[in-house]
This record gives sequence, structure tokens and C-alpha cells, in this order.
Amino acid sequence: MSPKPVFAGKDIVSVRDLSREGIDHILDVAETMEPLAKSGSDMLRGKIMATLFFEASTRTRLSFESAMSRLGGTSLGFSETKGTSVEKGENLADTVRVVENYADVLIVRHPLEGAARMAAEFSKIPVINAGSGAEEHPTQALLDLYTIRKARGSIDGTSVGLIGDLRYGRTVHSLAYALSQYKVNLFLISPEILRMRREVLEEVSNRVHVKESTSLRELLPELDVIYMTRIQKERFADLAEYEKVKGSYRLTAQELSKARKDSIVMHPLPRVDEVAPDVDNTKHAKYFEQVWYGLVLRMGVLALVLGAA
Amino acid sequence: MSPKPVFAGKDIVSVRDLSREGIDHILDVAETMEPLAKSGSDMLRGKIMATLFFEASTRTRLSFESAMSRLGGTSLGFSETKGTSVEKGENLADTVRVVENYADVLIVRHPLEGAARMAAEFSKIPVINAGSGAEEHPTQALLDLYTIRKARGSIDGTSVGLIGDLRYGRTVHSLAYALSQYKVNLFLISPEILRMRREVLEEVSNRVHVKESTSLRELLPELDVIYMTRIQKERFADLAEYEKVKGSYRLTAQELSKARKDSIVMHPLPRVDEVAPDVDNTKHAKYFEQVWYGLVLRMGVLALVLGAA
Amino acid sequence: MSPKPVFAGKDIVSVRDLSREGIDHILDVAETMEPLAKSGSDMLRGKIMATLFFEASTRTRLSFESAMSRLGGTSLGFSETKGTSVEKGENLADTVRVVENYADVLIVRHPLEGAARMAAEFSKIPVINAGSGAEEHPTQALLDLYTIRKARGSIDGTSVGLIGDLRYGRTVHSLAYALSQYKVNLFLISPEILRMRREVLEEVSNRVHVKESTSLRELLPELDVIYMTRIQKERFADLAEYEKVKGSYRLTAQELSKARKDSIVMHPLPRVDEVAPDVDNTKHAKYFEQVWYGLVLRMGVLALVLGAA
Repeated sequence: MSPKPVFAGKDIVSVRDLSREGIDHILDVAETMEPLAKSGSDMLRGKIMATLFFEASTRTRLSFESAMSRLGGTSLGFSETKGTSVEKGENLADTVRVVENYADVLIVRHPLEGAARMAAEFSKIPVINAGSGAEEHPTQALLDLYTIRKARGSIDGTSVGLIGDLRYGRTVHSLAYALSQYKVNLFLISPEILRMRREVLEEVSNRVHVKESTSLRELLPELDVIYMTRIQKERFADLAEYEKVKGSYRLTAQELSKARKDSIVMHPLPRVDEVAPDVDNTKHAKYFEQVWYGLVLRMGVLALVLGAA
Repeated sequence: MSPKPVFAGKDIVSVRDLSREGIDHILDVAETMEPLAKSGSDMLRGKIMATLFFEASTRTRLSFESAMSRLGGTSLGFSETKGTSVEKGENLADTVRVVENYADVLIVRHPLEGAARMAAEFSKIPVINAGSGAEEHPTQALLDLYTIRKARGSIDGTSVGLIGDLRYGRTVHSLAYALSQYKVNLFLISPEILRMRREVLEEVSNRVHVKESTSLRELLPELDVIYMTRIQKERFADLAEYEKVKGSYRLTAQELSKARKDSIVMHPLPRVDEVAPDVDNTKHAKYFEQVWYGLVLRMGVLALVLGAA
Repeated sequence: MSPKPVFAGKDIVSVRDLSREGIDHILDVAETMEPLAKSGSDMLRGKIMATLFFEASTRTRLSFESAMSRLGGTSLGFSETKGTSVEKGENLADTVRVVENYADVLIVRHPLEGAARMAAEFSKIPVINAGSGAEEHPTQALLDLYTIRKARGSIDGTSVGLIGDLRYGRTVHSLAYALSQYKVNLFLISPEILRMRREVLEEVSNRVHVKESTSLRELLPELDVIYMTRIQKERFADLAEYEKVKGSYRLTAQELSKARKDSIVMHPLPRVDEVAPDVDNTKHAKYFEQVWYGLVLRMGVLALVLGAA
């Protein structure tokens, strides 16, 4: 048996930096956080997390803050660049070299690709990427894996459908990379103009079986995991095209009657209408549990990089 | 003697849901919080409060956050919808079902009537309404009652004048409902176009003696509690009308010489000029003490719904 | 030996209120905070700091919040006036008399001269000025002194150059006042239109030797401390003038070869391009250490005014 991967002092910038052993270890640690997420803990007492959100994301920010709080730590930071020194022309490297003095771990969200990587290079303290550019959102991918493992016992052997906007959604890129570390069948279901980015597709195809399609209805019976995403109107030049597409990726309780009995429906949230409210009360719906798993996953990641787990 | 009302796990959405026994119990618990508001406490250590403010209100938010902090708990949340998933089209029910995973109690403020009620229906954890629509702001009403009880020893037997904008001010609606549980004389003093809403007036009139008037000067000598509110210019179509009204509801130290010696002046704050600065140093002024009482009242409510008191 | 200056319960509004003994004592206490800034502490457990930032300043706010957190205390507040009761027309005195109920110490930042002084007059709890108007930013001046003392062992006997915008930068005004308590040579280096304000110059000249100049290059070899500041384009009516000035106050590693071997480069940050990135890796660069010293200095100030040090 190989020694456990070490995360203390390390950055979490991309799932592509993580081995399967690394991912499994993170998921195992997340599991140990579930009771602490209910009872609270002093594991990170005295530790400070700084959230540098150059792009707003209340949901992700609150998840990290709650994780830190449940472990006894505290949070500070900013959630938009308005009124910050960034607005005065300061570069990211300087911002990082200032804020690292105020905290023990940095959570970075940024509209540009590579920003979290650059922050990690300059920072003396661990950096966790909470979304940068259209490409990476590693803790989202990890919580998705955790949700699948919790629901099905194992990730290997699962048929996963990623559905909707596979081109711009950062969530599905990170998740595709992460899933390719496991023995899965991957179904990429999207309108033609929102197909998975070529570079992601190529890398992932080298490791797992991938099938692309435009039809959710056709593939629904083959899926164990139905991973829905939001399709944004503004991506379409032709609104008629949008309306057609939108309807075909709308999941209802009735549609789900054709799905596998033990299949699960996931969604990174927020949803608009791609998952109908009547799905909420079916046994397939896992998207609110996903939020809970996100909390415990982030507790695990924080405890690991801060050397407490 | 009847058993104490139980609030653990309950929502506080409207004062209309509360019996007189319930209100008295909350005020009694608030009383026990006064020393803790000074010394601090570990009563809610490890507990998390989420503030979902769909409408900004720094004052109310800070009061709740301070209350949580004095009890050893922590806070997270958002204070405007800009940059939140709400802006991306998420509905209130989904927001609640996400954030309930991050906290032990939700504080909700929302511009629409009924929003806090709806949040409470979806939430697995207690919801406290911090203002929804023009109708309800229960912790404000409770802190107003607490202030009266502290200043006069008892709420029963008091003549209370609510003065100013009785139509749009959510504070006075909740307070009128709450006062109607006690043996009070209620004087509703406002310009014609800002009279108390009909539905509130009817319900309250069934329980206590109510007198409506447009003249503060005339009724001043009859009041034990002079509850002033801000009149907003934008409510008036005719500015000349506004200027006339504004002057007649401006309280000065000189005006107060005609008031009862032990009468108290209250105000939910912020004031603009309806209470002159020279009132601040009179013995009548209670509006800054009201802020302190608001803190201890909210400590009491938090401790109660979280089962710690 | 005289008794130590007492700061418990006191305000920190201006460095001009502080004697040399007072400043030295604050710096001594800051020194004792360095280990606590790393290990954390319970010194201010249960204490609450309120940040009333009527003008945004993420950097200063985060520094104070981190200081409070490292000492075991908590923070609440607002960082812009949008959405606050201030927007509804409330005056500063009322805001202070409300928020003092929620906290043990107030940190005030305000665009107007004299605002922090006024807040202190109304507040029952200690007020720390975090920048008001163009004139005062006392904790910045104190952390600058602390940085000089750490780097050189002593402030006395130092030749300090303040460079750039000496007219509008609040940092350099507070620093000039503070330095004039010590035996220093002060070099004020700026474009003609950004010369040090007359009233500051006069007061400071009474106590220390001051030399004004427009040339950094000429004076560089005489400086022990090279204190750079940002020159803002919008201060210049003539853009050609700005471009000329800007270049002449740009510090590079090559320029620094003409500086004293043990001279240090400081900057209140954020910088834009007045200090070239190639300076960062020279032994002269102290501006990121300054950030760290700012944290421990503010820990010291908080502990002092709250009576814990």
C-alpha cells in the first residue's frame, strides 16, 4: 500500500494536478467531515481564510465560509473588485503578496484562465481555485465525484451524462477531467454550438470511453448520472434556435420515468428551468444534497491544505 | 401556571403568529441576555447564522450579527442580490434550500410580502423574518415592546401614539399588531394620505381602543409613548402638501414641554429631521437605548429558536 | 522612568495627538504581537470590532479584520454607504450612536476631514481613524515607523525621503507628522504641483530638518528610507506634464544601484508602476514586509485601546 498523498501546504488549482489516489484521499477525508459539519469543530481554530473573489459567486463563497466556520476558523475577504486596490490598477501578484499576510489560506475566483495558477505561484500560503476563466473549478468537480460516490458507492462502472452547455460551463470541464481518472462511460449531450471544448474532449477521450450526442431523450435510459447544466440565452445568435434547444434539455418528472430506476439527477445550481420543480420530490433528485456534500468536501480540502487532516 | 411556550426549531415570521404568552416569554429571555451582551457568551458557539438580505438594511443586519457574535456564534450571508445566483434567475425556494446547508438559522429580508413566510415553508432550519414587504418586521416590534416594558415596567395600561407614515412603514404595522395583545390605548397620528392600512386597523381595533387623528400637537399630552417615524417625501404627489405635513410632525424639545413628564420618545431610526437633535438630551429620548434593546432582543430570539434558551 | 502611556478606552484619531513616548509604547506593544500574529491568540476573545467605512478601502479593512481575528475577536460593519441608513440621510453622529451598541471598538474611514474626530466625540467606545479626508491615517504612519525601526534598529538618525504625491496623499501627511517626533532628516521630493501642503510643512519644519526638491535622482544617494507613493494622472491638467513627472519618479533596480547599500524602499501600496517589479527581489524592497508590520501594528493598537495590552 502506498503512503497517503500529502496536501499540507499545497495548492488546489486544477483537478488535472491530482492523481486518482489524491482524489480518493480527498474524498475519504471529506467523509470524515460529515459529523463535524453538524456538530462543529475546533480543528482550524485560529486559522484565517481569505476569499479573493474577483468575480462574484455568493454560493461558492458561502460554502467555503461555512466550511471554515464549521471547523472553527474565520473568514475575511472581498467579493467584487469594486472599491478594491485592484480598481486602482494593482496587479494580481501584488494583491496576493499583500493578502497572504492576513490569512492562512487563499480562495481565489477570477474571470481569467490561469489566474488561480498565477496566484498560487506568488503565494506563500496555499491557494484554492474557486473558479478561474471558463476552465477550472476543482472543488466543484470534487464535490460532484463525492456525490456520485455517496449515491452509488463507487465512481467506477458509472455511466455519466453531462448535459447542456459543455462549451462555456467551467463546472463540466473540471468534472470531465476528474471523471477520466475513473472507469466511467462519458456521454456528452449538448446542442451543436455548445459542444465540449476540443482540448478537453481530446484529453478525456484518451482515458475513458466518450460518446457525443445532441439528444438527451435518446440517451436517458443509458445514464446512471444525469448531470444537468444551465443553458444561457446569450450564447445564441439565433433566438429561435435557443428556444428549440432549451425545450429539448428540460428534464421533468415524466421524462424521468424513462430513466434508470437508480439514476441520479445532479446540477451545479443555480438552475433556471432546465430541471422542472416536479423533479425535486423524486428519488432521483440529488442537487440539494450536492450542496451539502460541497460543504463537507470543502471542509476536507481546507483541513488538508492547512495540515489538520 | 401554563408551561412556557417552546420556540426551539420554530420560525419567527410574524408577530401575528405569537400569543401574548409567547411575546412575554421572548421579552423575559431578552432580559436575561443583557449581561451577556456586555460580557459575551459561548451559548451559541459553533452555530452559524446566514443573513439572506434581498434588500439592503445595514442596521438590522449589524444588529443580528452583533447578537450572534455576543453569543459566540458566527455569521455569513449576502446583503444585496447583485452578484448572487438570484440575479441569474434563481427562485427563493432554491436559494433557501441551498443556504440551509450552510447554517443553523436563516435571517431573511425581502422586498415582497410573504417572502419570509415562503422561505420558512421551504427551510429545514428556523427562519427569522427581518422585514418582508411593507407589512412585517417582527423583531422590530418585539424590541419596541421590550423598550416600553423597560421604560415603564409594564406594557399594559400604556397610551401609545404611532406618528408619521402609518401606511408604508413596516415597523408600525408589526408594532400595532403586537401592541393589540396588551391593554393599551392606541393613537394613530398621520397625514390623511398616510393613514394606517385598513386591514391592520380593523384587526387591531377588535382588540384595543384605537383613535385616529391628524394632529400630533393635540394628542401629545395624552401619550405615554411617542413613537415617531420618518415621512418620505416621495410619498407625496404635491410637494407643498409634504412641506406642510413634515413641519407638523417635527418633534422638538420645546414641543415636548407639553408632553407627559414620564413620556418616552421612540423611533425605529434612521431619523432625518422629524426628531430634532435637541430632543436627544432630554430624559424622554429612548431611541438610542432602543438600539441596545434591539441587540438583546435579537440575542434572545436567536437563543430561543436555536434551543439554547 | 515615567509611567507607560495609557491607551485603554482612548481614541486613535491623529498621530498629532500622540507624544513620542506614546508612539514608542505602541511600537513596543506591536513587537509583542509578532508571535501572536502567527500562532493566534484569545486576547480579544468575545470582543467585537465594527468597521464603518464610508469610503471603500479593502486593504485597510482586511488588515484590521485580520488583526482582530488573530487576537480571537470578531468583526462586523459596512464598507460602502450604498444601501446603508447613511443613504437615507442619517448623519454621522446618529450612525455612531447606533453602531456603538453593537461593538467594542469602531474603525472609521471617511472621505471628509474631521469625520473621525467627530465620530470619536460622539462615541462611548474607542474610535480608530482608518483614514479621513486627505489629512490623517494614523495607523499607516505608525506601521511606517514600525517598519523603519525594524529595518534599521532605530528611527532617530535616519534620512527619510518622501517621494511622489505629497499634496493629496493622506499617508505622507500622517507620516511627516509622526517622523517629526524623532531626530530625522526629511527630504520631500515631488513635482512642483504636488508639493507637501503648507500647513504640514510648517509644523514639521519646526521640529526636524526638512529639504524640498523635485529631483529623486539627485537625492537618492542621501536617503536611508526611500518612501515612494503613487502619482495619480487625474491630478494633472496637462497630460504631457504628467508623463514627464511620472518617468522621473519611477524607481528601478538599476536606479537603486546608486542608493545607499542599506537603504530601504517603502510604499503604502497599491503601486502602479512607480516601483518597477525588478525592485521586488532586491534587498532594498520592504513594501511587502510593511504589510505584515501593518498587521502586527494594528493588533497592538486594538489590544491597547481595548485594555488587553
